[in-house]
Amino acid sequence: MSNDLYDVIHRRRDVRAQFTGAPVPDAALARILSAAHAAPSVGLSQPWDFILVRDQTTRRAFFEHVQRERDTFAASLDPDAARRFARIKIDGVLESSLSVVVTYDPRRGGPAVLGRHAIADAGLYSVCLAIQNLWLAATAEDLGIGWVSFYREAFLRDLLHIPDTVRPVAWLCLGPVTHLETVPDLERHGWRRRTPLAEVVHRDRW
Amino acid sequence: MSNDLYDVIHRRRDVRAQFTGAPVPDAALARILSAAHAAPSVGLSQPWDFILVRDQTTRRAFFEHVQRERDTFAASLDPDAARRFARIKIDGVLESSLSVVVTYDPRRGGPAVLGRHAIADAGLYSVCLAIQNLWLAATAEDLGIGWVSFYREAFLRDLLHIPDTVRPVAWLCLGPVTHLETVPDLERHGWRRRTPLAEVVHRDRW
Repeated sequence: MSNDLYDVIHRRRDVRAQFTGAPVPDAALARILSAAHAAPSVGLSQPWDFILVRDQTTRRAFFEHVQRERDTFAASLDPDAARRFARIKIDGVLESSLSVVVTYDPRRGGPAVLGRHAIADAGLYSVCLAIQNLWLAATAEDLGIGWVSFYREAFLRDLLHIPDTVRPVAWLCLGPVTHLETVPDLERHGWRRRTPLAEVVHRDRW
Repeated sequence: MSNDLYDVIHRRRDVRAQFTGAPVPDAALARILSAAHAAPSVGLSQPWDFILVRDQTTRRAFFEHVQRERDTFAASLDPDAARRFARIKIDGVLESSLSVVVTYDPRRGGPAVLGRHAIADAGLYSVCLAIQNLWLAATAEDLGIGWVSFYREAFLRDLLHIPDTVRPVAWLCLGPVTHLETVPDLERHGWRRRTPLAEVVHRDRW
């Protein structure tokens, strides 16, 4: 596979069903985490942490929590949407090789974080930039990533003993995959279609 | 320059002083925006918009606002930090070729956005993933990006006639540069040093 940036960006998918469970080579994992850590951050605060979760008991507990949140969401849908949602797999927590939990520590680089005084969320934004680097690097390594967001932050904080001052931002399933789909799952399953770029580009003002 | 993903990730910088003001080729801009639009998003909501700001009056008004916010931040610093901050250029709004303002529309793909019922900020996270794709694509095109966050969201919303329901997330200066520095500005100017990756990696729990 090519590691050309554009190829990687357009090949990347949010993976649920294609994980093989095979090990992730240590060297690949190191490159992926280094890529995440090379992301830009407000005031050079680098406010992220990465928790590598391989423990089966922990992953099973998270998986069961995710199923409960799936039910909560399903109950909020109208019958047609609920039928479409029922076909959609939302996580690969148990099938993937490991999970990477990414967190945000607002105290990092403080108290005066350059560039954050007017926009408190700027530190949170930095963490997301690191996540996208991580995602693209995994894709370049022919691995899949699936971001699971059917969870309550308080549950995840308790599960992984994350300090109260630190916010969980993402649970990412990671590992080798049989293949990456060419069309996103939610489009293949009729949940929603991608919009044309032209609809979201404006000139000089909204 | 190589477009290898890892080369691009590690070459990328947050640019303030190196913009030349030369035009951005339309084809490059189209590739950059397409890369941003190819980012993952919660529930395939693609909740971002991109406002291309070339108008000089608008950019001047934003620049002047940024200078006022710079003064606000400077006044909050102790004397040593204030001295270090005084040497640091925080924006290239007037020198860059254009600006790209990125926004978040929480209504996009609603009302039931798959994957957002438990984490309201998941949509905001998606917008940041698009920003990192944009940033890396610009780097691959040998252009610079500088994220300016010394502004109040309400000011920017008014300036660009952004609807009340939409949140501005980033003002990005974009354009050709003389070069990309090898060391981040804030490290070169003694504001803060990058931390080793090992300090932010945990196993199984915090």
